[in-house]
Amino acid sequence: MSELINSEVFLAYSTYTTIVLLKMLLMGPLTGYFRVTRKAFANPEDARAHSGKDEENRKKYLRTDHEVERVRRCHQNDLENIVPFIGIGLLYVLTDPGLSTALLHFRIFAGSRIFHTIAYLVPFPQPARGLGWLVGWGATLSMAYRVLKIGMHL
Amino acid sequence: MSELINSEVFLAYSTYTTIVLLKMLLMGPLTGYFRVTRKAFANPEDARAHSGKDEENRKKYLRTDHEVERVRRCHQNDLENIVPFIGIGLLYVLTDPGLSTALLHFRIFAGSRIFHTIAYLVPFPQPARGLGWLVGWGATLSMAYRVLKIGMHL
Amino acid sequence: MSELINSEVFLAYSTYTTIVLLKMLLMGPLTGYFRVTRKAFANPEDARAHSGKDEENRKKYLRTDHEVERVRRCHQNDLENIVPFIGIGLLYVLTDPGLSTALLHFRIFAGSRIFHTIAYLVPFPQPARGLGWLVGWGATLSMAYRVLKIGMHL
Repeated sequence: MSELINSEVFLAYSTYTTIVLLKMLLMGPLTGYFRVTRKAFANPEDARAHSGKDEENRKKYLRTDHEVERVRRCHQNDLENIVPFIGIGLLYVLTDPGLSTALLHFRIFAGSRIFHTIAYLVPFPQPARGLGWLVGWGATLSMAYRVLKIGMHL
Repeated sequence: MSELINSEVFLAYSTYTTIVLLKMLLMGPLTGYFRVTRKAFANPEDARAHSGKDEENRKKYLRTDHEVERVRRCHQNDLENIVPFIGIGLLYVLTDPGLSTALLHFRIFAGSRIFHTIAYLVPFPQPARGLGWLVGWGATLSMAYRVLKIGMHL
Repeated sequence: MSELINSEVFLAYSTYTTIVLLKMLLMGPLTGYFRVTRKAFANPEDARAHSGKDEENRKKYLRTDHEVERVRRCHQNDLENIVPFIGIGLLYVLTDPGLSTALLHFRIFAGSRIFHTIAYLVPFPQPARGLGWLVGWGATLSMAYRVLKIGMHL
């Protein structure tokens, strides 16, 4: 265990995994922020909590808002891409890659996710967001290739 | 490996991770249960399987239901919060924290997710569900803080 | 670490985890493919990039399409089931199961996910997709049972 945690490659994995997960953990409160400021809730009990005694507002606040949906799609894209990165990344670390190659993969992935989030939320004109996503996707694929190349047991 | 699995902190992580994942795995069948009892399906082939030869019901059953959507939102919130817990939790275990501190984090997180699910499905008036979510979110953040404090390689 | 990566059970876990994650990673581009060919986008900037200067098309392309939604539901089901498999699977490997039993679990799970995807996208009449999902769900539950049976620290 101490050998694992003392490896520089694992430490780099641990750092970047924590960073992208923390970024993802901010998307929940960001959705909440837009729901509260835009008055656009998904649950009647949430609409009630923000409309006080006004019966009409309770119904009006139960709606979708395009800004809220944008943040939610960004959050979903995080889930879809960060989950494979964490799983494949851990297996990649255990193939004992060179530190500089590993760092390159982790930095590219984390940078791509941060850029993707900014491009989604600003939003930037396409294909900025698409390319941002593609770069991180490619980094994960590259790590998966090494994992399967090093050894497989089907 | 045997050292890893024999560590009490890892055993606690393993136990609570399995518990929250099992809880999450129940959300799928629960969605299915509401879809079948409420006759609210997302796919034409599902509506067909539950409407028999009645052509009109096939179309009527292809609809959204607010109870089904509630379970789905609860499931989604699980995904958004349990994924970071598993990833950051594993890295946290590898920082060799004290057993009682680690147990405190795991118990608070698991308790918060179980409370969140009940508060979402009953539902409880807000801010019960929001606070339930916040407590688990904070426990994950606290583990992430230790992971990054112990060592970083950017 | 070298002991961990040299274990045949871990190698099998690594192989099947990478395979199911690669399968999941294909769902994003597949969604994109259907969005582009069906002209059904969720973001105004995406609709703009594919409608050129035609102002009317920009609005028309901002819509949901039932094929796109089908791929997205399949992707979501992957997330909901592959995340527990990866987490519980890793813990299962650390309980030192027999190689043939472990391979049986991993093969059944991966096969179930590939079948589920095909059954969802073709689509096959129900209950084909439901049974495909159930088999993988059961394999994950079976691994969780062993993890908790071997040892718990609550």
